[in-house]
Amino acid sequence: MKLRLLAVLALLSSSVSFAQDSLMFRKIADEVMTHGKCYDDLRVLCKTVGHRISGSPAAAKAVVWGEKAMRASGADKVWLQACDVPYWYRGKEKLMLKIGKKYKEVDAVSLGNSHGTDGKLLKAPIIMVHNFNEFKALPERVVKGKIVFFNYRFRQDFIFTFQGYGDAVKYRGGGPSVAAEKGAVGVIIRSMSTGCDDYPHTGGTYYKDSTKKIPAMALGNTTADALEKACEHGQVMAKWKSECHMKPGLVRSYNVIGEIKGSEHPERIITVGGHLDSWDVGEGAQDDGAGCVQSIEVLRAMKALGLRPKYTVRAVLFMNEENGQKGGQAYADSAIALKENHVLAIETDAGGFSPRGVGLEMSDAQKAAIVKYRDLFLPYGVYDFDHEGGGSDIDPLRQKMKVPLAGLSPDSQRYFDLHHTNNDVFEQVNHRELKLGAATLAQFIYLVSEHGLL
Amino acid sequence: MKLRLLAVLALLSSSVSFAQDSLMFRKIADEVMTHGKCYDDLRVLCKTVGHRISGSPAAAKAVVWGEKAMRASGADKVWLQACDVPYWYRGKEKLMLKIGKKYKEVDAVSLGNSHGTDGKLLKAPIIMVHNFNEFKALPERVVKGKIVFFNYRFRQDFIFTFQGYGDAVKYRGGGPSVAAEKGAVGVIIRSMSTGCDDYPHTGGTYYKDSTKKIPAMALGNTTADALEKACEHGQVMAKWKSECHMKPGLVRSYNVIGEIKGSEHPERIITVGGHLDSWDVGEGAQDDGAGCVQSIEVLRAMKALGLRPKYTVRAVLFMNEENGQKGGQAYADSAIALKENHVLAIETDAGGFSPRGVGLEMSDAQKAAIVKYRDLFLPYGVYDFDHEGGGSDIDPLRQKMKVPLAGLSPDSQRYFDLHHTNNDVFEQVNHRELKLGAATLAQFIYLVSEHGLL
Repeated sequence: MKLRLLAVLALLSSSVSFAQDSLMFRKIADEVMTHGKCYDDLRVLCKTVGHRISGSPAAAKAVVWGEKAMRASGADKVWLQACDVPYWYRGKEKLMLKIGKKYKEVDAVSLGNSHGTDGKLLKAPIIMVHNFNEFKALPERVVKGKIVFFNYRFRQDFIFTFQGYGDAVKYRGGGPSVAAEKGAVGVIIRSMSTGCDDYPHTGGTYYKDSTKKIPAMALGNTTADALEKACEHGQVMAKWKSECHMKPGLVRSYNVIGEIKGSEHPERIITVGGHLDSWDVGEGAQDDGAGCVQSIEVLRAMKALGLRPKYTVRAVLFMNEENGQKGGQAYADSAIALKENHVLAIETDAGGFSPRGVGLEMSDAQKAAIVKYRDLFLPYGVYDFDHEGGGSDIDPLRQKMKVPLAGLSPDSQRYFDLHHTNNDVFEQVNHRELKLGAATLAQFIYLVSEHGLL
Repeated sequence: MKLRLLAVLALLSSSVSFAQDSLMFRKIADEVMTHGKCYDDLRVLCKTVGHRISGSPAAAKAVVWGEKAMRASGADKVWLQACDVPYWYRGKEKLMLKIGKKYKEVDAVSLGNSHGTDGKLLKAPIIMVHNFNEFKALPERVVKGKIVFFNYRFRQDFIFTFQGYGDAVKYRGGGPSVAAEKGAVGVIIRSMSTGCDDYPHTGGTYYKDSTKKIPAMALGNTTADALEKACEHGQVMAKWKSECHMKPGLVRSYNVIGEIKGSEHPERIITVGGHLDSWDVGEGAQDDGAGCVQSIEVLRAMKALGLRPKYTVRAVLFMNEENGQKGGQAYADSAIALKENHVLAIETDAGGFSPRGVGLEMSDAQKAAIVKYRDLFLPYGVYDFDHEGGGSDIDPLRQKMKVPLAGLSPDSQRYFDLHHTNNDVFEQVNHRELKLGAATLAQFIYLVSEHGLL
């Protein structure tokens, strides 16, 4: 009887608490959906700064923008955190393919971090392979002096497109070094693209120390289709000039940080962040302007609602996610040096699309502490807590300090149409989808700040 | 003991069946995502036919397109079903507002079914109200001879945007007659729009028999904002000419129908359909070209997989959803005349966005028979079976024959940015989102055909 009474009391108190939380979830969503500033912030970032690769003058401009936007959120404190970043410079680039009788210039982009032709002419025949296994089977003499075309298609059958990206990205990251090992003089890849279009997608490639740094470019799907067809019917020649290179040394840059001090446990910190740098194409709107403005919106909405979180909430615009993660490293290093108590870190770097869930990278007990609130999220279309979460910028916190991580999981269908292309512009972001993601983040952070992770 | 054994057996057989269903779900999704033709079909519809209001030459062209596309799906049988539809004709239209010192033409569209100024000049002052209650409070003498501006904002706080539409659409549907009752000479509405832009949204208005048919136009949000501001500061004049009118009589048109005969119960019919007509703006891409090509895709995918459903599956491209539902009526009337056995009817008319669920409008027992398979849908991002389903085209089947209904529930965030505007074009449809919706429909139909509804 006593047990039953206790159970009833527990149920009552839990439903009371659910009711309060549910009310706060509603307030947060209403505030963000009706008064949210993140979409306006994103417009300013995209249209006045544009793309902003680490180390570039544009990235420095983005830091100024970020500090201003963070202050406008009403954060208790805003500061810059120094980090030294590489500066990869694209310069001019031109790829011509001889499909049919004449050379024709095609739309192509050099892979990030790659070393181009130093502006000199590279002229060579192309050999096509569909995957690494096919490439392995080729004798060295066939590869030597050639440009290798890794014609691996992004698999459209994965429903969660990040799986398709994970499957295909090894050709971008590792293709050039694999090809160089057999004496190739250049690499062309089919972009990691779900798109039915011709946008080439850039993104980081990484040379092995042991191999020659051969130039590498990506083609959009339409041109890759044409090249595929041509290679099936005979030898295709390429002429190519590119100037891209990694500039020597590092450039001083910054993470932009804003925080609201916790009311009960100011020493316990919840971080939410996106990355401020982008590749040097498009406007870095979905990748990851969206995550930046959503993180700022979390602070703004809390301030506007007079919601004083129990824990300290920090929004961080990380620098250099795309090619070095120096900002994420600096943030973790500072946390260690200052002996900070990081309860949770959340990244939003999967686009400002309609949220579907929050991925969790933490102990099962911690996951359970969150998942029991699942029903609170359902009216906002957020139901999926089963994917792994996290992100590159916050991973150093996990590695060095065992901080539990989470990541916003928006709908993934459109991301790899746009990712790292000239088409990743403000117009590709929907204001309601962006805001809904920000609301999810604020709700999630409110919940953890209110109830802890255990 | 015996009961426990039975329970275990039941569990085993159910998990065996789940495994088979799960495999078929995978096959369907793979087929649609990698070989789906619906996106190509939509391109042809949008770019060679374009918008296609009922009764127009374009609608007749769309029927020809639909029959051809349906045949290409491999359907066992394809036919046209006659229905007689109204033909509302827009003609020229021009709205000028005197905001400041000069008249300036603004982007505006006449409401569907409305009667314009017969091409004559209407010049009158505007009075602004924010809702019907405000309007009710106005004395007749204030309204008489004026153009009433119903400045009701689409509520952005509803997460499911169809709720916001339901809340706001009464100003479009009923505003003109309400205003006419007090002697207004015209109506301007703020569009039913979630957009941060100036696209005006058309859509049906309905005059009461007892009131004068006064002309009515919609403004996009930006112009409505400007007019709102101007009205707050003084009187705004409007000059307006429009030719729109309902043509006398009806025009012979058609539903386009294709079917796959059921292997075990050919007499049991599952219908899946979208509507072929659109408003006379944009390309009717999301509304509802998407639903048409998804319905055709269901047949194509089943044929391509050699999946012979136990029940007969029919894809229907309904005519005249937007302003009369004559196609839906004709379909139900024929079903009654032929004494057909309709097990389930499904509509897809909420856009070709990422699917989130299937709305159900049926008995609780029938709902339960579907919801027990919920987990099968989860890997495809489909989790929500809690919204009411159905749709205007299939509603006559429910009303006249008590047929259970369902409706595809895609993500609703972007729909009312585009709905009934010049911006509802092919480029606004994402190929993966569109295909994923088609896959959900095919999976859902396969399931009901395999296991029935009870």
